[in-house]
Amino acid sequence: MRQRHKPWADDFLKENTHVIIPNAAEKKGKWQALFGNDHPIHVEIGTGKGQFISGMAEQYPDINFIGIELAKSIIVMAGSKVKEAGLDNVSLVYQDAADLHELFAENEISVIYLNFSDPWPKKRHAKRRLTFHTFLEQYQHILRPDGEIVLKTDNQGLFEYSLVSFSQFGLKLKEVNLDLHDIEDPENVMTEYEEKFSAKGQPIYRCRAQFSRGPVD
Amino acid sequence: MRQRHKPWADDFLKENTHVIIPNAAEKKGKWQALFGNDHPIHVEIGTGKGQFISGMAEQYPDINFIGIELAKSIIVMAGSKVKEAGLDNVSLVYQDAADLHELFAENEISVIYLNFSDPWPKKRHAKRRLTFHTFLEQYQHILRPDGEIVLKTDNQGLFEYSLVSFSQFGLKLKEVNLDLHDIEDPENVMTEYEEKFSAKGQPIYRCRAQFSRGPVD
Repeated sequence: MRQRHKPWADDFLKENTHVIIPNAAEKKGKWQALFGNDHPIHVEIGTGKGQFISGMAEQYPDINFIGIELAKSIIVMAGSKVKEAGLDNVSLVYQDAADLHELFAENEISVIYLNFSDPWPKKRHAKRRLTFHTFLEQYQHILRPDGEIVLKTDNQGLFEYSLVSFSQFGLKLKEVNLDLHDIEDPENVMTEYEEKFSAKGQPIYRCRAQFSRGPVD
Repeated sequence: MRQRHKPWADDFLKENTHVIIPNAAEKKGKWQALFGNDHPIHVEIGTGKGQFISGMAEQYPDINFIGIELAKSIIVMAGSKVKEAGLDNVSLVYQDAADLHELFAENEISVIYLNFSDPWPKKRHAKRRLTFHTFLEQYQHILRPDGEIVLKTDNQGLFEYSLVSFSQFGLKLKEVNLDLHDIEDPENVMTEYEEKFSAKGQPIYRCRAQFSRGPVD
């Protein structure tokens, strides 16, 4: 997404440290304390403008959500949305997702959402895809043994790649859906991209995958 | 597929025992001897009218192909095709695929093709799908450790189900393709169904999966 210069972004970040958490690495292993409860923590990597995470947070008040976003001009839009909705179960982190183990302790996270991640279609860029094995290693570290990865995308190539990458890493698929909007699912919260692509009639793919460290159900 | 009565079917079976092998269970563990070489054996379950298996046999003369088909009126059409083409690397078996361990010895097979299998869409019929775990157990038994299953279908539900079933069974996905005819693949041999569905613009799904008994590549 093209980032437009937003002069109010720096001010927003300074004034809303309860929504967009500064020095987030200091919260490693202590996120539940920040939320003030022992609810499970779900992390969205690449939160964008925050439609998904704020919709999820409204729908699931007993889950804590953390959204990570690399683009300053975008995360402040997510921050505004969360602030306006008065959601106290969402925190945002303005940071690259490459260093998740610095943000989260082992087993601290229950679910990781990868929504419409950059497909990096060129083969030589495969290592930048959020389902490349180096990322999966990080997810495995921070996820609880029964935790899962939920991937949604409209990108055929990324979905095909990710299914194989998950499988080769030893993750087990719990669900594969090749046309998410074919059947109405009232529990599905759409991202901004998803709404746009789905309206065009393009299929949206989703899968849920689980590391098989724990007992397999 | 609706089976039409073909009075010549019984005669064809009697007169072409070199193409459609009678008492095939007696060949268990001895299929290479039947072919008269030590080439790898690929099995297609549900051969239909034989377009795929005869096309593959022409394209890969150094592979032995065995096609299994339950419907008499259909397998004789496959038999005619194989006979006319003068292919000596194809054998057909007129039998249900439920008893593969009676047809093949452990490790006797290199590749199993499941082409446009009956999707059995109702949940209560799941156990009849050729990717239900009871079938996977049989495939695992007769496949070599480095052998693989190649699944092609136009049925979204069957493909979704099969990816999850493979994964839960411990198979590793080597390839997933969600629109096989999007890019021209000169090596892909089409089945009759595939040609028909593909011409309508429907996506054809394919995946290749491997049991991970042997060393994982």
